Amino acid sequence: MRPPWGINMIGKDFLLESDYAQELYDKHAASQPIIDYHNHLNPQMIAEDYQFEDISEVWLGGDHYKWRAMRANGVEERFVTGDGDSFGKFQKWADTLQHAMRNPLYHWTHLELVRYFGISEVLNPASAKRIYDQCNAILKQKEFSVRGLLRMMNVEVLCTTDDPIDDLRWHKAIAADKSFEIKVNPSWRPDKVMAIDDKANYVAYIGRLGEAAGMEIKSFADLLTALSKRQEYFAAHGCKAADHGFNDFPDRDFTESALESIFAKALKGDGVTSEEAAVFKSGMIFHLAKMNNEMGWAQQFHIGAIRNNNRKLFKKLGPDVGCDSMADDKVAAGLSRILGKLDEENCLTRTILYNLNPKDSEVLMSMAYNFNDGSVPGKMQYGAAWWFLDQMEGMRQQLEILSHGGLLSRFVGMLTDSRSFLSFPRHEYFRRILCNELGNDLKRGLLPKEEMEFIGKMTEDICYRNAKEYFKF
Amino acid sequence: MRPPWGINMIGKDFLLESDYAQELYDKHAASQPIIDYHNHLNPQMIAEDYQFEDISEVWLGGDHYKWRAMRANGVEERFVTGDGDSFGKFQKWADTLQHAMRNPLYHWTHLELVRYFGISEVLNPASAKRIYDQCNAILKQKEFSVRGLLRMMNVEVLCTTDDPIDDLRWHKAIAADKSFEIKVNPSWRPDKVMAIDDKANYVAYIGRLGEAAGMEIKSFADLLTALSKRQEYFAAHGCKAADHGFNDFPDRDFTESALESIFAKALKGDGVTSEEAAVFKSGMIFHLAKMNNEMGWAQQFHIGAIRNNNRKLFKKLGPDVGCDSMADDKVAAGLSRILGKLDEENCLTRTILYNLNPKDSEVLMSMAYNFNDGSVPGKMQYGAAWWFLDQMEGMRQQLEILSHGGLLSRFVGMLTDSRSFLSFPRHEYFRRILCNELGNDLKRGLLPKEEMEFIGKMTEDICYRNAKEYFKF
Amino acid sequence: MRPPWGINMIGKDFLLESDYAQELYDKHAASQPIIDYHNHLNPQMIAEDYQFEDISEVWLGGDHYKWRAMRANGVEERFVTGDGDSFGKFQKWADTLQHAMRNPLYHWTHLELVRYFGISEVLNPASAKRIYDQCNAILKQKEFSVRGLLRMMNVEVLCTTDDPIDDLRWHKAIAADKSFEIKVNPSWRPDKVMAIDDKANYVAYIGRLGEAAGMEIKSFADLLTALSKRQEYFAAHGCKAADHGFNDFPDRDFTESALESIFAKALKGDGVTSEEAAVFKSGMIFHLAKMNNEMGWAQQFHIGAIRNNNRKLFKKLGPDVGCDSMADDKVAAGLSRILGKLDEENCLTRTILYNLNPKDSEVLMSMAYNFNDGSVPGKMQYGAAWWFLDQMEGMRQQLEILSHGGLLSRFVGMLTDSRSFLSFPRHEYFRRILCNELGNDLKRGLLPKEEMEFIGKMTEDICYRNAKEYFKF
Repeated sequence: MRPPWGINMIGKDFLLESDYAQELYDKHAASQPIIDYHNHLNPQMIAEDYQFEDISEVWLGGDHYKWRAMRANGVEERFVTGDGDSFGKFQKWADTLQHAMRNPLYHWTHLELVRYFGISEVLNPASAKRIYDQCNAILKQKEFSVRGLLRMMNVEVLCTTDDPIDDLRWHKAIAADKSFEIKVNPSWRPDKVMAIDDKANYVAYIGRLGEAAGMEIKSFADLLTALSKRQEYFAAHGCKAADHGFNDFPDRDFTESALESIFAKALKGDGVTSEEAAVFKSGMIFHLAKMNNEMGWAQQFHIGAIRNNNRKLFKKLGPDVGCDSMADDKVAAGLSRILGKLDEENCLTRTILYNLNPKDSEVLMSMAYNFNDGSVPGKMQYGAAWWFLDQMEGMRQQLEILSHGGLLSRFVGMLTDSRSFLSFPRHEYFRRILCNELGNDLKRGLLPKEEMEFIGKMTEDICYRNAKEYFKF
Repeated sequence: MRPPWGINMIGKDFLLESDYAQELYDKHAASQPIIDYHNHLNPQMIAEDYQFEDISEVWLGGDHYKWRAMRANGVEERFVTGDGDSFGKFQKWADTLQHAMRNPLYHWTHLELVRYFGISEVLNPASAKRIYDQCNAILKQKEFSVRGLLRMMNVEVLCTTDDPIDDLRWHKAIAADKSFEIKVNPSWRPDKVMAIDDKANYVAYIGRLGEAAGMEIKSFADLLTALSKRQEYFAAHGCKAADHGFNDFPDRDFTESALESIFAKALKGDGVTSEEAAVFKSGMIFHLAKMNNEMGWAQQFHIGAIRNNNRKLFKKLGPDVGCDSMADDKVAAGLSRILGKLDEENCLTRTILYNLNPKDSEVLMSMAYNFNDGSVPGKMQYGAAWWFLDQMEGMRQQLEILSHGGLLSRFVGMLTDSRSFLSFPRHEYFRRILCNELGNDLKRGLLPKEEMEFIGKMTEDICYRNAKEYFKF
Repeated sequence: MRPPWGINMIGKDFLLESDYAQELYDKHAASQPIIDYHNHLNPQMIAEDYQFEDISEVWLGGDHYKWRAMRANGVEERFVTGDGDSFGKFQKWADTLQHAMRNPLYHWTHLELVRYFGISEVLNPASAKRIYDQCNAILKQKEFSVRGLLRMMNVEVLCTTDDPIDDLRWHKAIAADKSFEIKVNPSWRPDKVMAIDDKANYVAYIGRLGEAAGMEIKSFADLLTALSKRQEYFAAHGCKAADHGFNDFPDRDFTESALESIFAKALKGDGVTSEEAAVFKSGMIFHLAKMNNEMGWAQQFHIGAIRNNNRKLFKKLGPDVGCDSMADDKVAAGLSRILGKLDEENCLTRTILYNLNPKDSEVLMSMAYNFNDGSVPGKMQYGAAWWFLDQMEGMRQQLEILSHGGLLSRFVGMLTDSRSFLSFPRHEYFRRILCNELGNDLKRGLLPKEEMEFIGKMTEDICYRNAKEYFKF
């Protein structure tokens, strides 16, 4: 079933620059199953075992990374997100890709061509038509359905990202289908509960949350009760982890009565001040984190995006269209306050901190490790390279920072964070980079060769076993 | 005419660590003409075809990089900017240079010695007298006049940096001189128009601006009219680009009436509050950027210097004497606000963002690409390594960050940003580093060898063609 | 006396990746005496020539780096700082160490095993008992007393870190003991004088300071007088340097009368506002720095820690237990204000700036060099990699940033900053990294081979001579 190795750029030794690296990859990394513990895949497409129309749909239908590159390459919006024809879009993409050499898209795309389609030819304007036709012919085969694509990559577990009001019908359908062996778990992402400053939508959202929980939410205490009911529901359907996204990190002191009164004000639909919103969010994330601990879930904090900068495209296309970037707010004091309070009240669960702005990498790494308490190895994690940092050099730096500041051996490893069913070779990409780093250290004499057995085991742990144990899959 | 290759440190393969790098440099980079689209050269010296007295004048007469290093090496101010004798200064410089190994000055200086003077000897205290005499003898030759030095480096276009009140007489004289083939364009740098908090000078400056525009400036609306007239004048004399310097980036909301009233207050000479200045600057940069768009110019934002930190030297010597450094203010939200507003109102022109503090590199890179709209390839650029970052590792990192976050292929390449007529080998320095990065990627299998032809063309584009098309020279 | 070279990981060429590096290390670095100009060693243990009980006491008795790693590895507090038995703790440490591959602890520990104990075996759970017994047998030998350990490493001078109220009795005892040839100087660390916001302790501390100075402190002027008396006392006992730690850097304007009134308020025990504290600290550091200049001392600024984040462990164990991390406040404007004012008033002494957060590295480097005045080579230093940055990559980056932004040749080199008597091999670690960087540059043709003699001398200067001259030992 596995397509042949590519030639040229993506050969057997792709990214592996020493014999040690090759050995670690071949013997310890390549065959590990994939646990993709955080992504944005659509569970309906898995439940219905969706079959894609063509390669343009898979690659260009929803991938804001590619859209962003295409706009930068001078492609008009019609061929990016508009009504341009399928091959027209693909041709523009092929030209953009050639102009994107050294961008992670270049490696990702060629890895996907080789691993899914067995195509080792370079994609560029000259080869575009040929590759387009080949891919489309292959995508028509039954085993290239969404489930087939997942199986091809040896996926064992994947975790989608879901709103508390989600009824999880597709997760239920998947779980009920005995013919499909891959676990598809929901994750708890209550960002809209935090968004008290979204005056236009907040009251209606709280209403829907109440409906989902089978109760009316009239107070902050009610809100917590409703969330707790929804958490039980999520847990009953396989949820093991929560996920929280932050632009500027909540960093205010708060009291329970302040949370009640701010929430009451918001429920009246009058909106809240920015200071009230900041206090509310600081309290809300504390309570959400406390509830995560009660559920025994791991929690993930994604810190530092500034979203929808391009208002014109936001109005036209909505969120997540390639116009997000890095915030540069302070995070250390706010993080210290919230994690410190959780730890002090004995309700800090296993936590992973991700940053978008590399200026925060060492800050998050060093902050996380203040709160390890010996209860679980690697309880506090400095998370994998995220979004703009999810590329060769970004991953390498995440590994360095984690290694120098903490325990690489306890790292839960990579995730795709992706909306695309073709992005699973990024686990391979990460594994090669990991093995290469370790291999280079062995070659340079920075790690002892006597410990090769342990290093092999550590490689396996990071690729697979650590995540399995950490999230309790 | 071209001096021989140096021996030892600066050989044919200087900075080129693979055969691929050497091939790219020799075939695609070395022979490209230079477009130096941003510098601080004195156009009068070009118009008058200045001949330097001696090497101390060229090297030490105005170079704050060297002054800064000399002070750090324990050289007293008399031999830095004072009345020390010419060879005395040069001797101190030679000692400082030896102590500056690994600093960019070390490579720059030796490159200049080889490329302009054909001297491949190492400059140190022992060789100082010999090299001093050799350089001085050569500088007396007619072909080592300012124009000769520019021709030697194959310069095709250069853009100086000019105040809106400048009468551009020297640019006119150069353009009128048919015997000189290098284009010398002015650039529009209206920083003093922004400086409403410079109470001591602002009113007088606005007066002079009115004079230059042939009108009296009595309101903010008048100010915009006067600027517009000066822009037309600049455009008529070859201006293609604007340039704006920021310490802390303007990040306030503003109304037109607020701008009028703050400007009115300032015109009375009473000064404005720091909050008023911040609002004014936020509005002013919006209008300046809008006007740049109307002119069809590209615009450059230089973000994050903190200047004249050494008040003692500032009082004695004035600005630009080697006592500037990196600010560390937040920039993401302010940039998002201004670029977003310009884009929303359809008046965002081609824009290049430069940062001084490396903590802002990824922020600027990721912010720029939010506003590409498909109208022009590479419309929004993450600019070349600037000032303290303009060195081997800084350039390498700029190339990495640009590559991983965007499209290296569309990069408009290097500039000198220099006050010195001897600094043009820095284009060679950049080109070697660029070719080396690409060569390393080819050698490491990170780029496909099948695409060598495209990579060669891309190298040429970055060295020359992209800038030519982007600025519409 | 020197133990044999290790095998395997730590061989003769450990970290030395070129013949140039090996030559520089062997001929110019290895034999230089150690000047450890900043550490936290306990002078009493030197005065009394303490003999350690066993290896657990030396390694695990007070090392918060190791504690932090152990907690992250899932070790319960009993075996970290609690009453676990000695070998039990060591066994947990051996397991943690294996899981800490790529962390600086891994290299440090194995270097210490080889250099002090002649043990070149890898420490892991399997070898733990054997190594534990070997080390303990060796530690019983008289020449492995505290003084012996220092002599073994060729230490010439070391500077402890001391509070102004310290009576320096142990420093006196050491100086009086003619049988011990290593200089043990106190350093002046008046952080508690700054801590006006520590309401619980400030008044009592000022009282003790008055006692130490033999006077009553009733005003800010009195405070300065008392400090001045203590400085004279410190100077009389060998003090050559002051040291100041900052979390957020003081950045307010202040007047003398404001300092008097804020101090008066604090002395009443009523506490001060956070704004008053900020103003006080801004004035206090100015006066402290001015006094350092009057003494002719060098001063060190340690910037950007956020301490005691884990309140639970702070309450249980106190400060310095492995729960500190990096702050991310702004520093440029505050530093410019204080250094600018000191320079303007001609009272800026030789100053070293250290940062904990790498986002500040280039900011501090570039700020420091604004204030070189030619009086002393390298007057303003960008300091060695500190704490979390004190590891292979952190040191390499400090060398790069210093090289590219300033004069590496004038660098005063490494310090341990340690609480452990076994940490002196970190000087070797630094020296190897330094030689490797220079060697790589020579190998890559980035430095001229003709200057090998100067590069050798520069290596010696950085390892030894620069510190000796800078601090006037």
